[in-house]
Amino acid sequence: MDLDLMRELSVETDSKIILLILDGLGGLPMEAGGKTELEAANSPNLDAMAAESDLGMSRPVAAGVSPGSGPGHLGLFGYDPLEYIVGRGVLSALGVGFELGENDLAARINFATLDGDGKISDRRAGRISSEKGEELVALLNEKVSLGGAEFFVTHEKEYRAVVVFRGEGFSGSLSDTDPQRVGLEPLSVTPADDSNASQKRSASVANEFINKANEVLADEHPANTVLLRGFGMHPTLPSFDEAYKLNAVAIAGYPMYKGLARLAGMELKKEGEGISGEIETLKSSWDSHDFFFVHMKPTDAAGEDGDFDRKKEVIEEVDALLPEILSLEPDVLAITGDHGTPAKMKSHSWHGVPFMLRSEYTLPTGDKFGERACIAGSLGTFPAEEIMGLLMGHAMKLNRYGA
Amino acid sequence: MDLDLMRELSVETDSKIILLILDGLGGLPMEAGGKTELEAANSPNLDAMAAESDLGMSRPVAAGVSPGSGPGHLGLFGYDPLEYIVGRGVLSALGVGFELGENDLAARINFATLDGDGKISDRRAGRISSEKGEELVALLNEKVSLGGAEFFVTHEKEYRAVVVFRGEGFSGSLSDTDPQRVGLEPLSVTPADDSNASQKRSASVANEFINKANEVLADEHPANTVLLRGFGMHPTLPSFDEAYKLNAVAIAGYPMYKGLARLAGMELKKEGEGISGEIETLKSSWDSHDFFFVHMKPTDAAGEDGDFDRKKEVIEEVDALLPEILSLEPDVLAITGDHGTPAKMKSHSWHGVPFMLRSEYTLPTGDKFGERACIAGSLGTFPAEEIMGLLMGHAMKLNRYGA
Repeated sequence: MDLDLMRELSVETDSKIILLILDGLGGLPMEAGGKTELEAANSPNLDAMAAESDLGMSRPVAAGVSPGSGPGHLGLFGYDPLEYIVGRGVLSALGVGFELGENDLAARINFATLDGDGKISDRRAGRISSEKGEELVALLNEKVSLGGAEFFVTHEKEYRAVVVFRGEGFSGSLSDTDPQRVGLEPLSVTPADDSNASQKRSASVANEFINKANEVLADEHPANTVLLRGFGMHPTLPSFDEAYKLNAVAIAGYPMYKGLARLAGMELKKEGEGISGEIETLKSSWDSHDFFFVHMKPTDAAGEDGDFDRKKEVIEEVDALLPEILSLEPDVLAITGDHGTPAKMKSHSWHGVPFMLRSEYTLPTGDKFGERACIAGSLGTFPAEEIMGLLMGHAMKLNRYGA
Repeated sequence: MDLDLMRELSVETDSKIILLILDGLGGLPMEAGGKTELEAANSPNLDAMAAESDLGMSRPVAAGVSPGSGPGHLGLFGYDPLEYIVGRGVLSALGVGFELGENDLAARINFATLDGDGKISDRRAGRISSEKGEELVALLNEKVSLGGAEFFVTHEKEYRAVVVFRGEGFSGSLSDTDPQRVGLEPLSVTPADDSNASQKRSASVANEFINKANEVLADEHPANTVLLRGFGMHPTLPSFDEAYKLNAVAIAGYPMYKGLARLAGMELKKEGEGISGEIETLKSSWDSHDFFFVHMKPTDAAGEDGDFDRKKEVIEEVDALLPEILSLEPDVLAITGDHGTPAKMKSHSWHGVPFMLRSEYTLPTGDKFGERACIAGSLGTFPAEEIMGLLMGHAMKLNRYGA
């Protein structure tokens, strides 16, 4: 999406847009001749909506490339995921719900095992339990202190954690310390550019943290050291307000998606539990916002588990709640995913993702919401980054370009 | 294709990819309401493969632009044909099977006629025979010698030849000598940038060659001079190994395609004659490589001849051999062309080219391999440059992008 064009053309209006993301929505037949999860679902409400909608296939990132959640959502929000890079450390921080500030430097931590010769003998510290991981994180936060910066370690899961350094003038252009193989010494954090003062200072703070962590963890074999990787700063994205003049709210349950939405300057809201809780939140926010990013995770989780039937059932659950969403009478309602997670693959995929957009100004081509109906739809196959433009156009929130 | 992205994400695996190119595959109906060559072909094996494949239309270069073999194949290999320019001289050298080195400077030669006033009276020397052309090439190689460089003249056909200058520090940024019209004097070779030493030296070597050739050819009217155009150096492409971590082999009979594959760092192999010889080579190389570029020329030749039926028959011949290819159990098999060569047009065309990709992870939409089936396919119409990404993704040779 050309964000400068959006900035130039967008206008504030009363119209309201809902972007409903069923994470990992796209699917595949389990065997030749079969249906996809979405095609197999009994979804009369989605199908009725399709009969009033533009359909198409939204393609994330690049041909053949399966996106992670970060690039997948940046694309949906209209940011080029190859231009706006969100480092692993930042995503981890977002994922654990850490309120990352603009000057914060984040890195992913793996607890690991150092042998008597100072070499890494296990890059995951024997996959210590989450309880043990939490205990070690508390120890680091309590016992380590740095000369030049504040820091916060937050536990993720098992041997994984995230550290955020807070101070002035940091840079994320730093090397990883994980040697990637056992039998080697951990690497020092080094600046990408030796002559860059903020990189040098950042590296020095990170190395100080590692050295002090090693002292604190000395007796904690097998988790007696930390490996740091994926250094990165909070990326600066043009906000939804700035780019689209939208007063956007994100209704999402998982920290990662809340974090990504916050990067785009969206307000965060979530009341109640599960999918129906999200619908409740949508209703309660209806009068105060004009853009609603609603994120539903269970489709992706079922796909990752390879559970075709559960993914189908989640879609049916959403289908049953659709009338409640439609009763809000959004000017534009689009339903799609950030990528496919076909149960057949048990992973994110590169395939096109079914996309459906309902507004007063559509050219319907069928009465089914499914991959093959979307392939034959009025929008064809198009880059996911174009979705925001479509939403804005259908909501009559874009001025004509040129006279 | 974003080659940096491929370089970043690609991983070496055991999976095997075949890219089968039927040169000039795309066609058109001879009259309204008719079928294309591919649609008219009796091709049960291709159709059965379509029922298990993703289908789409691959579009070369740019809308409305018919590619030559160079840009057509660069696109198939994932190189932007508007960025990676292969000069006419280099293509000619590749086409005659000349083993172009990295420091070699190539230019296309036309034998031409100079009148008594030193003006060009025929830019093709009366279209001399190939025998005569060969004789003159031998004469130039024997009688001309240059102060500052080695050179090699190789005959192409009739009045066409190619010259390769070998030395250090050459540049291809040089002007043509063909004045493009009769009645004008031939131009001197001039450097694009007067202050560039290697351009100046290259121009001086080329002009020395022309002057000495004129002396040698003085009595050979009508072929008493040479016009040089399309100067170029061996282009530096990221190799398949570098960009995709693929150990690629090219199975092709014609020098031009072998040359293009060599530019991409592919190994060259070809045993036996014709299409069936290529299948034999595919089998014999199966264990030693993981990417197989198989090039079949007769579809294009039939199209260029305007022979609809012969083109159809070539497709039927390939269809009959398809089971042998499938019996190798490639993880990914894609079949397409580098451009269309509709018999109706007797030339390369700009149209989309039918594309079919079979793997475990497809979303089939029909059971026919033909233009109109591909238009309705799951891949839609897409740039030919994306083919390599699709092949890599379906072969599970790309890491996820971002977390």
